[in-house]
Amino acid sequence: MPAANIGPELQRLIDLLAKLPGLGPRSAKRAALHLLKKRDPLMRPLAFALDDAADKVKACGTCGNWDSIDPCAVCADPMRDAGILCVVADVGDLWALERAGAHRGRYHVLGGLLSPLDGVGPNELSIGALVARASGGGVKEIVLALPTTVDGQTTAHYLGDQLMGAGVAVTRLSQGVPVGGELDYLDEGTLAAAMKSRRPQ
Amino acid sequence: MPAANIGPELQRLIDLLAKLPGLGPRSAKRAALHLLKKRDPLMRPLAFALDDAADKVKACGTCGNWDSIDPCAVCADPMRDAGILCVVADVGDLWALERAGAHRGRYHVLGGLLSPLDGVGPNELSIGALVARASGGGVKEIVLALPTTVDGQTTAHYLGDQLMGAGVAVTRLSQGVPVGGELDYLDEGTLAAAMKSRRPQ
Repeated sequence: MPAANIGPELQRLIDLLAKLPGLGPRSAKRAALHLLKKRDPLMRPLAFALDDAADKVKACGTCGNWDSIDPCAVCADPMRDAGILCVVADVGDLWALERAGAHRGRYHVLGGLLSPLDGVGPNELSIGALVARASGGGVKEIVLALPTTVDGQTTAHYLGDQLMGAGVAVTRLSQGVPVGGELDYLDEGTLAAAMKSRRPQ
Repeated sequence: MPAANIGPELQRLIDLLAKLPGLGPRSAKRAALHLLKKRDPLMRPLAFALDDAADKVKACGTCGNWDSIDPCAVCADPMRDAGILCVVADVGDLWALERAGAHRGRYHVLGGLLSPLDGVGPNELSIGALVARASGGGVKEIVLALPTTVDGQTTAHYLGDQLMGAGVAVTRLSQGVPVGGELDYLDEGTLAAAMKSRRPQ
């Protein structure tokens, strides 16, 4: 007997909230109750913000970042080094690198990773545009900031092949022990990689 | 450097999503990216559902349950026993009892618990209306389904006093070992309460 005696408008709201990553059916109910108690400070503004962002936020025509201006704020920033492109799978990864202040160049968002099992081939990703940017002049280095999963590494290998003739250096993030990482809790693969790429103290 | 290079529309959406219980700043970003990828199936319908529920869902004038009809579906159901009122702090507790199919009477939602430290006194809660319903005839029993916290028990004692002259039986949920509960993991208070109110096998 799920959701007995909950009106249709409220039930629809709960069902949609439950589709957000991080919210399940139970926390969606809690969120709906919270919203109903805060109609003016939260519920109406959230409805407006959803419509407003759905209208205005678009993928940057150059790099694929989400922004309300095109080119996006990163591509439009004259202080950033246009000679280094950092390739990421998704906009969330771009945000993570920005949060870390780890990259002062520009980006290229692939829009996913190659995944034959899920039917994602090269044509589903922004790979042609990346090769065109790399070959267009002005780019000296392409940093592949892709996850160290099977799909991520497959994609990195494929991109390496595609960028072979572009005349740019292709690099990737180093692998090793995370900052603050206890050796005891690390998986064997990471430890082996860290040992293999050890550096002088 | 939080949220560098995220456009204002997107940043506002993330800030509002982060105010939902269960979502923090990081999961709000993930939710915003998910929404932007599913504008038509999820983002626009969610905006509509928020506005629609904010317009239509109101507190039931009788019991305080949220519903788009007044009296609410529970109060309007002729199959439910009008002689037993179950008193809950919040609509979420009403939903939990409905999910369990634990109560076939009607409800009364207090809208919170007495909490002197937070400035919640009897006038902030729907206590006068409860006493009026209890005294109005037709009600035989009032079940206090309040949390076993300090505030919950304070509220239960206060309600017991207020309902003294109404001529109704006042009961409360039993305390004891939860179904599926391992004794070893239970707190001492629960174990002591379960022992004290032990029953014949």
